[in-house]
Amino acid sequence: MSKDLPLFYVPELNSERFQYLVGDEATHGIRVLRLEVDDEILITDGRGRMSSGVIASKSKRSLDFELLEDLEPEHKEPGFHLAIAPTKNMDRLEFCVEKCIEIGLGKLSLVICQNSERRQVRVDRLQKIAISAMKQSRAAFLPDISEPLPISDFISHERSEDLFIAHCRTGEREFLKSNSSPACLLIGPEGDFTESEIEEAVANGAKPVHLGPKRLRTETAAIVGCTLMNL
Amino acid sequence: MSKDLPLFYVPELNSERFQYLVGDEATHGIRVLRLEVDDEILITDGRGRMSSGVIASKSKRSLDFELLEDLEPEHKEPGFHLAIAPTKNMDRLEFCVEKCIEIGLGKLSLVICQNSERRQVRVDRLQKIAISAMKQSRAAFLPDISEPLPISDFISHERSEDLFIAHCRTGEREFLKSNSSPACLLIGPEGDFTESEIEEAVANGAKPVHLGPKRLRTETAAIVGCTLMNL
Repeated sequence: MSKDLPLFYVPELNSERFQYLVGDEATHGIRVLRLEVDDEILITDGRGRMSSGVIASKSKRSLDFELLEDLEPEHKEPGFHLAIAPTKNMDRLEFCVEKCIEIGLGKLSLVICQNSERRQVRVDRLQKIAISAMKQSRAAFLPDISEPLPISDFISHERSEDLFIAHCRTGEREFLKSNSSPACLLIGPEGDFTESEIEEAVANGAKPVHLGPKRLRTETAAIVGCTLMNL
Repeated sequence: MSKDLPLFYVPELNSERFQYLVGDEATHGIRVLRLEVDDEILITDGRGRMSSGVIASKSKRSLDFELLEDLEPEHKEPGFHLAIAPTKNMDRLEFCVEKCIEIGLGKLSLVICQNSERRQVRVDRLQKIAISAMKQSRAAFLPDISEPLPISDFISHERSEDLFIAHCRTGEREFLKSNSSPACLLIGPEGDFTESEIEEAVANGAKPVHLGPKRLRTETAAIVGCTLMNL
């Protein structure tokens, strides 16, 4: 797969010979990349499919492409599921999401905790960042991002084989180690999880973990956790 | 050491009983934290010393403290030396420096490469971010940050026991593994190191490494590298 061809996200990618780019993807191709007929492109559906194509026609607002062939994806589907309490400062959360997707993120959940200062998140903004990060890292997997959920609801519904809760309170905690099965890591807000949140998570099968000797900010903990889980 | 006491950076910390906070540190204590006489504080010199103190007197622009006792630092001195090509977007570099200091960074060098789009950096701004990140992570070590240097000059003067160069070009590369001795990791600019830069580094003893299967942005590579080197 050529590293240099521009990559587009087409969630509705099907098997038709002629298909089109829409919305932001078309605008980017037309205005920023200034693509012309016969230019080669790559297309992903964000669910593991990566295909080559060529621009077939062009108007002011749309770009049609001819689908050529399906390519072998370079990366496997990331198994890591991050469940994070949104940071007070949105920039920090956005940066963290971008970094985790570059490193390898299969799913993102947003959880609201007792100490959360931020309880609302514009998920559509995070989705745009996710698409951009997926394209930047030439990957074919776009993580699902779910609407914020109270932590109790999240914990009682989460069915990952391995659920880890990273916290800085006292009590026995193991250093987070990567494992081959898909796993979910819970990262708390500024001010950490409360004792009762940790107890509830543990009662639901979560294993308490730490991420090293230093106290990390929420977004740093998420990036470090993502790195460790992708080892 | 109480997690809750405010921590101040006093590079000139000595053994006198009465000393004072100056500049940004004093302003922060007076205007933001609104400290009063008899309030307890922590003080670090950024070179491993962490002491307790108590506010002795206060004026509009200065805070005097009485030095109480030296405390056992919670973290050991980080051995990791990051040499990074500054990113085009300064926010990305600043965020990366903050994250690396939280995780564990002993020294930061800025290197200018053939593909560098940014050749100048306000080191004083990075130093402020470094102080803030050190205090945030309750650490007593402030990394040295050196002025940008052409990569050739850097490589010919670098004397780390282990020097690693992370790149995405072809050629044999090992996955970066943590090791106990102090080590330096070179991270290239957007567009990567050139072949000749890699050759020069290898001729000077650098070992080529990669950071996993995915192509990472400059600042992401630095954070992942820092995490791996602190394992």
